[in-house]
Amino acid sequence: MSTIALSPDQFTKDELYFLLRDSIIPRPIAWVSSIDANGITNLAPFSFFNVCSANPPILGFCCGAKDEDAATGAFSVKDTLSNVKATKQFVVNIVPENLAEEMVRTSDPLPPHESEFEHADLVSAASTKVRPPRVVGSPVAYECELFSVTPLGANAWVMGRVIHVHIDERIYIGEKRGLNHRVDTLKHTELRPYARLGGAYYARLREIETMARRDGG
Amino acid sequence: MSTIALSPDQFTKDELYFLLRDSIIPRPIAWVSSIDANGITNLAPFSFFNVCSANPPILGFCCGAKDEDAATGAFSVKDTLSNVKATKQFVVNIVPENLAEEMVRTSDPLPPHESEFEHADLVSAASTKVRPPRVVGSPVAYECELFSVTPLGANAWVMGRVIHVHIDERIYIGEKRGLNHRVDTLKHTELRPYARLGGAYYARLREIETMARRDGG
Repeated sequence: MSTIALSPDQFTKDELYFLLRDSIIPRPIAWVSSIDANGITNLAPFSFFNVCSANPPILGFCCGAKDEDAATGAFSVKDTLSNVKATKQFVVNIVPENLAEEMVRTSDPLPPHESEFEHADLVSAASTKVRPPRVVGSPVAYECELFSVTPLGANAWVMGRVIHVHIDERIYIGEKRGLNHRVDTLKHTELRPYARLGGAYYARLREIETMARRDGG
Repeated sequence: MSTIALSPDQFTKDELYFLLRDSIIPRPIAWVSSIDANGITNLAPFSFFNVCSANPPILGFCCGAKDEDAATGAFSVKDTLSNVKATKQFVVNIVPENLAEEMVRTSDPLPPHESEFEHADLVSAASTKVRPPRVVGSPVAYECELFSVTPLGANAWVMGRVIHVHIDERIYIGEKRGLNHRVDTLKHTELRPYARLGGAYYARLREIETMARRDGG
């Protein structure tokens, strides 16, 4: 079969973004809550996101720049990144299917003094160890303290260390095969994590299959 | 609704891994090919993986340690990490549905001198700018040069910069809305990226929906 071979310098910036966004799928969504120095909360979805290490527990996400300012060509920093740099804290909330529309609404552009919680009719709950609140209804929420920020062009790769975990008791199964604190994130359809694809596409986890691995991974 | 709140130190290492693996889903799969100093190729799947930046194009994945040595308690380094550190090069191949079984077979434990390409009956093709070959049949393959390795406990967060791209012409659509080099990774079912969930679960992308965003993201 034939392939097209290209160098990144044959792509415009937008084309390269679309290629990566549309081919590295499906992506889990980090719904990141943060807070500024004045106590204004922020909530935004990021899907260039994953586990960076399970032990120590480190999560990472890419916080892109806001769109270029048409007049100056300058990038401005997203509220999430400003907040995380200022407070060294954030919460990664997992997005359940039944909050998919609310999640998309939190990507609406809002002025910094307005909170996405109110804009999307979401309820927040106080976190245990960090100031940013978590999203009520998220099946699992990870309270994080900032580990590092790596600038990559106008983007930043942000890593945080998990310091507290909240698990919806409906998916918490506790002991299983001698291990405690197990979860079943597929148990209730409406609480299954919602997935990001390319374009304006998202997916629900339905066609699930078991593939036994021999390395135990 | 009630939640269980826990601190990471209330988890064993395995419990923490399972929590993260089972809740941060679905994950895209990086099928990473690498080569050692003697020219032996290696191929292994990693799902703690995502885009770290679209511009510059940087991909990242977590290369965990091999299982602890029962006798010494020491971790050994996976072949992928040894190879990437030695040669500064790797290829991220996207896993199409029709190579799902072969992908799982490449996670079988093999001695370092045996290649997973042969073990899983896969065909390799020479890359353009790097020594590790790519997987024939992968819809998109990203040739990468090592950008950084961040040790996180016994794991390593590996970032690589994309320096060449191979796209199966069956999913290459070229120009769309004034942008060139666009791909449609959902077009052919058998070429859709295969997804990693928790446990021994994987998923096919089927229940797909459109959610319009107002930030253009």
